[in-house]
Amino acid sequence: MEKAPHAVTAHGDGLSLHAFLTEPVVRRALEEDLAWGDVSAWGAVPADKQATGILLAKAPGVIAGLPIARQVYALLDPAFEVTFLVEDGMHVEPGVPIARLVGSARTLLSGERVALNFVQRLSGVATKTRTYVEALAGFKTQLVDTRKTTPGLRLLEKYAVRVGGGRNHRYGLADAILIKDNHILLAGGIRQAVANARAVAALTARIEVECESLEMVREALAAGADIIMLDNMTNEAMREAVAVIAGRALTEASGNVTLERLPGIAETAVDFVSSGAITHSVSALDISLDVEG
Amino acid sequence: MEKAPHAVTAHGDGLSLHAFLTEPVVRRALEEDLAWGDVSAWGAVPADKQATGILLAKAPGVIAGLPIARQVYALLDPAFEVTFLVEDGMHVEPGVPIARLVGSARTLLSGERVALNFVQRLSGVATKTRTYVEALAGFKTQLVDTRKTTPGLRLLEKYAVRVGGGRNHRYGLADAILIKDNHILLAGGIRQAVANARAVAALTARIEVECESLEMVREALAAGADIIMLDNMTNEAMREAVAVIAGRALTEASGNVTLERLPGIAETAVDFVSSGAITHSVSALDISLDVEG
Amino acid sequence: MEKAPHAVTAHGDGLSLHAFLTEPVVRRALEEDLAWGDVSAWGAVPADKQATGILLAKAPGVIAGLPIARQVYALLDPAFEVTFLVEDGMHVEPGVPIARLVGSARTLLSGERVALNFVQRLSGVATKTRTYVEALAGFKTQLVDTRKTTPGLRLLEKYAVRVGGGRNHRYGLADAILIKDNHILLAGGIRQAVANARAVAALTARIEVECESLEMVREALAAGADIIMLDNMTNEAMREAVAVIAGRALTEASGNVTLERLPGIAETAVDFVSSGAITHSVSALDISLDVEG
Amino acid sequence: MEKAPHAVTAHGDGLSLHAFLTEPVVRRALEEDLAWGDVSAWGAVPADKQATGILLAKAPGVIAGLPIARQVYALLDPAFEVTFLVEDGMHVEPGVPIARLVGSARTLLSGERVALNFVQRLSGVATKTRTYVEALAGFKTQLVDTRKTTPGLRLLEKYAVRVGGGRNHRYGLADAILIKDNHILLAGGIRQAVANARAVAALTARIEVECESLEMVREALAAGADIIMLDNMTNEAMREAVAVIAGRALTEASGNVTLERLPGIAETAVDFVSSGAITHSVSALDISLDVEG
Amino acid sequence: MEKAPHAVTAHGDGLSLHAFLTEPVVRRALEEDLAWGDVSAWGAVPADKQATGILLAKAPGVIAGLPIARQVYALLDPAFEVTFLVEDGMHVEPGVPIARLVGSARTLLSGERVALNFVQRLSGVATKTRTYVEALAGFKTQLVDTRKTTPGLRLLEKYAVRVGGGRNHRYGLADAILIKDNHILLAGGIRQAVANARAVAALTARIEVECESLEMVREALAAGADIIMLDNMTNEAMREAVAVIAGRALTEASGNVTLERLPGIAETAVDFVSSGAITHSVSALDISLDVEG
Amino acid sequence: MEKAPHAVTAHGDGLSLHAFLTEPVVRRALEEDLAWGDVSAWGAVPADKQATGILLAKAPGVIAGLPIARQVYALLDPAFEVTFLVEDGMHVEPGVPIARLVGSARTLLSGERVALNFVQRLSGVATKTRTYVEALAGFKTQLVDTRKTTPGLRLLEKYAVRVGGGRNHRYGLADAILIKDNHILLAGGIRQAVANARAVAALTARIEVECESLEMVREALAAGADIIMLDNMTNEAMREAVAVIAGRALTEASGNVTLERLPGIAETAVDFVSSGAITHSVSALDISLDVEG
Repeated sequence: MEKAPHAVTAHGDGLSLHAFLTEPVVRRALEEDLAWGDVSAWGAVPADKQATGILLAKAPGVIAGLPIARQVYALLDPAFEVTFLVEDGMHVEPGVPIARLVGSARTLLSGERVALNFVQRLSGVATKTRTYVEALAGFKTQLVDTRKTTPGLRLLEKYAVRVGGGRNHRYGLADAILIKDNHILLAGGIRQAVANARAVAALTARIEVECESLEMVREALAAGADIIMLDNMTNEAMREAVAVIAGRALTEASGNVTLERLPGIAETAVDFVSSGAITHSVSALDISLDVEG
Repeated sequence: MEKAPHAVTAHGDGLSLHAFLTEPVVRRALEEDLAWGDVSAWGAVPADKQATGILLAKAPGVIAGLPIARQVYALLDPAFEVTFLVEDGMHVEPGVPIARLVGSARTLLSGERVALNFVQRLSGVATKTRTYVEALAGFKTQLVDTRKTTPGLRLLEKYAVRVGGGRNHRYGLADAILIKDNHILLAGGIRQAVANARAVAALTARIEVECESLEMVREALAAGADIIMLDNMTNEAMREAVAVIAGRALTEASGNVTLERLPGIAETAVDFVSSGAITHSVSALDISLDVEG
Repeated sequence: MEKAPHAVTAHGDGLSLHAFLTEPVVRRALEEDLAWGDVSAWGAVPADKQATGILLAKAPGVIAGLPIARQVYALLDPAFEVTFLVEDGMHVEPGVPIARLVGSARTLLSGERVALNFVQRLSGVATKTRTYVEALAGFKTQLVDTRKTTPGLRLLEKYAVRVGGGRNHRYGLADAILIKDNHILLAGGIRQAVANARAVAALTARIEVECESLEMVREALAAGADIIMLDNMTNEAMREAVAVIAGRALTEASGNVTLERLPGIAETAVDFVSSGAITHSVSALDISLDVEG
Repeated sequence: MEKAPHAVTAHGDGLSLHAFLTEPVVRRALEEDLAWGDVSAWGAVPADKQATGILLAKAPGVIAGLPIARQVYALLDPAFEVTFLVEDGMHVEPGVPIARLVGSARTLLSGERVALNFVQRLSGVATKTRTYVEALAGFKTQLVDTRKTTPGLRLLEKYAVRVGGGRNHRYGLADAILIKDNHILLAGGIRQAVANARAVAALTARIEVECESLEMVREALAAGADIIMLDNMTNEAMREAVAVIAGRALTEASGNVTLERLPGIAETAVDFVSSGAITHSVSALDISLDVEG
Repeated sequence: MEKAPHAVTAHGDGLSLHAFLTEPVVRRALEEDLAWGDVSAWGAVPADKQATGILLAKAPGVIAGLPIARQVYALLDPAFEVTFLVEDGMHVEPGVPIARLVGSARTLLSGERVALNFVQRLSGVATKTRTYVEALAGFKTQLVDTRKTTPGLRLLEKYAVRVGGGRNHRYGLADAILIKDNHILLAGGIRQAVANARAVAALTARIEVECESLEMVREALAAGADIIMLDNMTNEAMREAVAVIAGRALTEASGNVTLERLPGIAETAVDFVSSGAITHSVSALDISLDVEG
Repeated sequence: MEKAPHAVTAHGDGLSLHAFLTEPVVRRALEEDLAWGDVSAWGAVPADKQATGILLAKAPGVIAGLPIARQVYALLDPAFEVTFLVEDGMHVEPGVPIARLVGSARTLLSGERVALNFVQRLSGVATKTRTYVEALAGFKTQLVDTRKTTPGLRLLEKYAVRVGGGRNHRYGLADAILIKDNHILLAGGIRQAVANARAVAALTARIEVECESLEMVREALAAGADIIMLDNMTNEAMREAVAVIAGRALTEASGNVTLERLPGIAETAVDFVSSGAITHSVSALDISLDVEG
């Protein structure tokens, strides 16, 4: 249960989740599973039986989503108690107990799958993020996520990325201007696209331009971009681009980002490297519920 | 674009998705991304510009979720046209065009990410499912899914499993009685658990009992189980269990199911093998949007 | 307040209602009545006046829905106390007090109609169900409900059927395969319909076939039906069908089921008899609110 | 298909239902039934098969709810056609075709139960209402409904009452002031209750007072009631009350209203007689779907 | 903090707001602001820091909406305490503390804008209403509102009008019949319009007719109107109309109502004068949050 | 109908409103008014009567919200036609026709109030914004809005600000970091607050710091602020601040901004000036519906 180098906690570093925002997500998940009740639990377990369960890590990883597990049980039964034995952001090894669940035995069983579906997926995101973040250790380059999140779970997955030590890119399409290849194609040039977008966007929105060549980088700088995305470039090309930009804009490496490539990318001194895979291609962290009879 | 052996189509084999059911899921995903509009598209692209886009496979896999991509665009703009170039269930190779998108250039760009997030994930599920199903080719054993689905997407992921050629296990907790280890522990025995559950469940619900030993299998049979889950057993133990059951109940292998183990499991002659990984640990299928300027 | 022979209790026999599922139903009902407040209560009763009310049976019957009455008042005012004086499933005679309501006098009055609308209807369902169940006393035949429920209230009405001592048939269309006359007509035969449906349904779904003749019964058996519905048959024909089936499938009598016919139907030894009338043609149980000044 | 004496039509007399208001009610009903699809229809019927169905009356009654049946099918499939063969408000005899349903055979079957659940219940309400209205034929007394409606269906049931020829009482608690026995008890007198309520209610709200004696009637008149409810009075007492009131307020007979008592009540010359039974104790009108193969 | 002449309190005079009705409105407002969290508060303020804030009047006015401010914070954090220092309906001068907010410093900041947006607008409505009501002091004429309310906030704005001392006109279109110029035009006359509307409306709905001339007033009386709206008339014309009506109907002055005209209108002895401006053209009352470090 | 100097159009400049986002807002407004139907229209107007209405400006101003008026009628009746005679962003004088409404006469009347409530309020916002924008003509200073919007209408009001020629500040709390006085107080200094917030915010979020003195301005610059808010400063102080900042950050004047002060503020050469009053203290633009009989 030792805290990993990049460990962060749910309360200490701006990782809060507003319960009123996650409640509808949790309700929908419960409705998917429990719309007509849980006939197995009703049948097998007496109504007044109490029980204790332990969520147990069965693989190494970074835990995320414990407040959601608590919310699952709170919606089922306000008297049910969920005690965190680790905190979101902590690294666990197999066998480490994560949370203690105490209350009605029926409720314990009826909420198990939904609670685990959330915690296992979010921990999967946090774990993959942490692995990537650790590959960047010692470099200034920071890992950021994308909008390639699971439909309906963006708030939670962006939270899990932060839990894992990554940073968030835009939450939605209006947070920032991001002029990509298709925008440039349809707009007829970077300068025009940026100028027009700046006029309609919130003044607080940064402007990012996706560039595939040094020429585009120069155009983007001239157009006043705050961030320049270096898209699908070789490390060599990125190094050159960073030199050209010379601090006049933030830089973000993007495209074909794998764990193996991360140190090489970081050596180019880009400010950020973005990965869609940390949210769209994730393995659930293996966690089980042990019931004490 | 050749159809894989297990290929099924959205219209021919009971794979329909009711649009009124998926509409709320699609709306939520659009709200996540577009709550305040798309300032990049508004800025870069003239309002009356039309464009054509092609969804293009960039990796081999099985397509699932095209009707959802169409629904994404229909919600944004009823006049936008989405033409399927393949059908859900077809295997595609890199470079194969999947769908043609024609209409307002702004709409084309604004809906891209949400449409892709759905199709890439569902195709990921269908592709993994198909790989598993193909590993069972020649055996009677059928692949089934679990309730280990992404919160909020169960309907779609169970659909994608069917698209991939798998079968569905329970949709929710009331569809069937499934007496697992924790139920038995809390109920004080299989017989009692089954008898009680049968009395409260719908008469149409089958009764399944999770067994970890031959002794439990015999108890489950005596209790009248319709399906016997052989949980975390060796192939040898499963073979023995199948012999003991002798057709008196359906059999389902469960636990630590990997692609590699599938042929071995199938050789035990179990009726079903279930996998949580086909929904909880999936890589998005790589698909891109090519815009024709 | 003597407990009837078939009396069951909300806590002892799997009759639980998940509050998070009934809450939206109760909210909608409250919104129908109270969208703009209760000007009569506001006008007539001082804001700080407390009062006690008693829900009183005015006709004999079986009570169902008390947890919903409590939820009505909890949504109006968390401090309002609802004490059950009987439990769901108990038979009451006229004059028997059912629940005590203590709190703000305005709240007591404002919630009265909504609480009673729920409890009176659900008790009506439970009462009619109990009458039918008692007509089957001494026989093995069990009463089951149908999908002929009030739109929006299926969860509650299926609960009330269980409270009355009946069993539930399918909750929705995907819980089981039920091949009816129109399916057979459109499919071109029982065997084909069953085989196709089995391939798309969840493996946990039982297969039922509606039969109107012995010939169809034989076909259904050959097709592998788990349950055979004997539709609109004479008792004589059902007896014959039961003999033919000989335990190879469960049997369900259906069509023109009245209270008077129940013993005759039960004598045919069918396993189940289904009634739509216990949910679609029900008289509210007469219950009043007595306020203690 | 002859039009009954009191027949009214959906379009001619203010009986419109706003589709945007009934849509959520219909969606919820469809979700109850179809949340995971219709495996029987998918299995038994080819996806491209078309079919025609006829809704057929199997008992005499007044039809209500046809626009809802159309909305059920429109939500399932915009291309599905529902043609009304009678109109809401018409009396039908057994064997009369009510509506023609043409489109996808799967859709025809999947929507059947939900469509019928609505039309059968609403027609039950309209039929019972019509019977009561006909018992008042020749008298000036008009039938009105109450707030004793099915939770979630008040809009539709109040519509069905109008379809049956009855009139509506309040829709919700703020439409009018209604001072009942419990209000008077808690307020300490009629005069005070009315004066206070008038001050907080909308100026458009009429004031009604429930009276159980002539003395109360006189008090209510003095307090300025617009409507006087004669609660649980004998016909003799009501006749006397009507004479005392002498047109200074409208009068409404209430309590223990049965079909048999209606002519006697009407002879007292009260303006209105209210019945909760026309909405809370109703038998579904028997209607079936005949499919043409 | 002295109570103004017309001061009313939230608990004493029928001004209650049902929390279950305002909760969805408050949730939507919170979602608008906090959908992705409050990065400033998370960043700037330690998670465990507690703070106290004071809502302070910065302009003179009538407070309305304090229960909504409390609900805002309760939804963010059940442990957060909001203490009212004045009550809805009280007049405050600049510098008067309105409420004390105690709890998590992050929550204090995150809820500030939403809480203030509600209280400032509702206090603006109450303040404008109070000014109008005071201009009518000494006259029998009462101020009423209209349906010209902010979309989505009608319940709250009608409450704020009552808090300010005004009375409510209809909540929605079915509460009363109001035959306006366009209805008369399309119906072909007052008498016909009233007779038809009376037949379809709830019996509890009063009938109001908008009149622009004495001739129309006479027609409206003959048609049985309960309320006669004198629309856009001169004071002289209204005086004459009141004399003609002679108490046979209530009277309501409407159109071009300004603060300055109120005494003149009241001198005509109309029963009511209605103003859309008290809800559709309102300045927010200036209120600030002072944080004690 | 001449286009004002700053006129913009809904289609040309990024002012689009996504209909799927405004639909829930429009539905709620319709439900407020029409929950139980429109008894006046049903009564007064025959069901098959068609009519034409004209929305007519009765005061000078800038129109905003026409797409919402169209959506109101589309939800009531897909066949109803709304033709725009001007476009959002155009200045109109009294008497100018704004839109033509053609269809069912009942629908025309039933939708009138809701359509006008939206268009009048949004046009009020656009009109006030335009007045402010025009006061800045000839200066580089741009007008921006705030989060002081009407609860539930933020999307529409921010749109109306753009229609009026203003620019948007943040949509919600996560779009940008804005460190205000209370944050600084609770964080213990600007530098710490900014550094912490930057670490948790999206990388695309700009950082703004509210400053009340030159000393704070210098601290904010040192902390890396992108935007510096000059809060409640005199014009003299702002001029000095702008000089100190010297283009290293954007500048925003805030606090006590009135129409009269705008030119003086602009002369300080700040980049932006923000106004809460353009959304929180607005008079509805007077618009009427003229029906052609």
